Amino acid sequence: MLNVTLLGSGGGMPIPNRHLSTMVLNYKGRQILIDCGEGSQVAIRKNHSGFKSIDIICITHFHGDHIFGLPGLLSTMGNSGREKSITIIGPTGLKKIMKGLLSLVSYLPYDIKLVEISRSKLSLKIKSGILQVERNNNSRQADIILSTLELDHSSICLGYSFNISRNPKFHPEKAMALNIPKEYWSRLQSGKEVLYKDKIYKPNMVLGKERKGIKLSYITDTRPIKEIIDFIQESNLFICEGTYGDNEDIEKAEKNKHMTFKEAAELANNGNIKELLLTHFSTAMNNPELYKENASNIFKNTIIGCDGYNKVLTYE
Amino acid sequence: MLNVTLLGSGGGMPIPNRHLSTMVLNYKGRQILIDCGEGSQVAIRKNHSGFKSIDIICITHFHGDHIFGLPGLLSTMGNSGREKSITIIGPTGLKKIMKGLLSLVSYLPYDIKLVEISRSKLSLKIKSGILQVERNNNSRQADIILSTLELDHSSICLGYSFNISRNPKFHPEKAMALNIPKEYWSRLQSGKEVLYKDKIYKPNMVLGKERKGIKLSYITDTRPIKEIIDFIQESNLFICEGTYGDNEDIEKAEKNKHMTFKEAAELANNGNIKELLLTHFSTAMNNPELYKENASNIFKNTIIGCDGYNKVLTYE
Repeated sequence: MLNVTLLGSGGGMPIPNRHLSTMVLNYKGRQILIDCGEGSQVAIRKNHSGFKSIDIICITHFHGDHIFGLPGLLSTMGNSGREKSITIIGPTGLKKIMKGLLSLVSYLPYDIKLVEISRSKLSLKIKSGILQVERNNNSRQADIILSTLELDHSSICLGYSFNISRNPKFHPEKAMALNIPKEYWSRLQSGKEVLYKDKIYKPNMVLGKERKGIKLSYITDTRPIKEIIDFIQESNLFICEGTYGDNEDIEKAEKNKHMTFKEAAELANNGNIKELLLTHFSTAMNNPELYKENASNIFKNTIIGCDGYNKVLTYE
Repeated sequence: MLNVTLLGSGGGMPIPNRHLSTMVLNYKGRQILIDCGEGSQVAIRKNHSGFKSIDIICITHFHGDHIFGLPGLLSTMGNSGREKSITIIGPTGLKKIMKGLLSLVSYLPYDIKLVEISRSKLSLKIKSGILQVERNNNSRQADIILSTLELDHSSICLGYSFNISRNPKFHPEKAMALNIPKEYWSRLQSGKEVLYKDKIYKPNMVLGKERKGIKLSYITDTRPIKEIIDFIQESNLFICEGTYGDNEDIEKAEKNKHMTFKEAAELANNGNIKELLLTHFSTAMNNPELYKENASNIFKNTIIGCDGYNKVLTYE
């Protein structure tokens, strides 16, 4: 189960009644934040999701509307009693940006681990009570597999996807027929072999077929490059920037390296995904709902994001 | 005339429905901002005071709730078409802090002049359409005299006062009686001597007595040191931190180097000021109005600040 909340839905600048595009994922009580524009900590307060359990912050890129909330958030997390380390993941340049940013913050009672990545996969696992990046990158035992994609924006920018795998169904009747004692069942269930009375039992002898997990993709800010289509394949939820609602704003979208609703819907349509959630709306667009048809005519299951939009993704 | 708006009234952290303590002064269409916590640019939008005419930003100290809004504000000012330079005034350390802060901002289409000060006076004057710090510090010709005071906080911190002087009344009947031609009247009015037909005419020959100007004082964050009493003398408006409303929070006030309402009112009472405006309320204080009597019992003309509180100060 993955609880997804869009804390803000705006791009460019924070405005009254619309926070900047920031998302929070809640997995087994631990939280991952994606981007942190100015005022994100206020949006977190409105959402009552709390500061203490934010373990990982993923940064898409270093434009102000995606990072200027970090000094305040990190300070507030310190004031909220955070002591365990947090991990900040972002594109190349993260360490330099964080150096400038942390020079503004007087004291933090926790460590910050910085992870610079490009196109790669990371295994996230709950260890010592917090969600961490696994060093050995053993995706088999990960709680969440995080993948990134390099996008096409006016600065280096990453798309993110989060995969929670699902174990195949365990068939106790098969285990009983093979006379495997119950104490070995959980080992087989977790995909490991068992040696019992000189005989090797393999997981596939007691497990059903592969089952689809949960996949969430987050793509902002970018032009609609074709690599996105592969990257978002089979997402339960595809969160995508739709900076411009009006199809006629295509020139602005091209110039500023953003997307129209129509372009985001075309990616969704080709990406074999279940639902499209649009966000990162231009400050000039007062009511994004007015342009919904520009997307839903192409991809029916389109949701126009709004601050506080919440969805729980479960196994099918 | 000086138009004063309290953009926010909170201290510590931004919370829903209360922006951080920030003030904006409007003098002849040009603006001075005092402090800039996270979200100040949103408060400016709510106030419809605009970004283009902010010429000077005064920083009291470098704690996050007073500066974390700067990267966003400076970026938004750039996006709003600001091209003329702006001046940022603050205590020693300003240049170092601004170096870290500006490393986060990609590009600004205007110059930033940094002025580090301690206990001093600066002359502000409208020149080339913007309010600037006068290099020669000629207070006689200044539009506004800015004074600072070193306060007693957990970090180096400055109090500010803004003085707009008022010219003495000009008496045309005296000028006529002395047969001074009209073309010289404005020169005498502005305090300069006139040489006419081998005779020197001095301003005091045609001007009335000194008249009180407008004085505004801004004191946050600090303990109530006695130097504040002299500094705020004869202020039309004394804006002062009142982090804690409850008298019983005096220990917290002492520990965190802040003030209770009562302590701020005692300063006001000794400072020969007209009105006290309290601000910088602790996030734990939901309704500061509940504690108003703790101040107004000591100093009657006490106003409990709120986001958007506006007052126009005029000559008496």
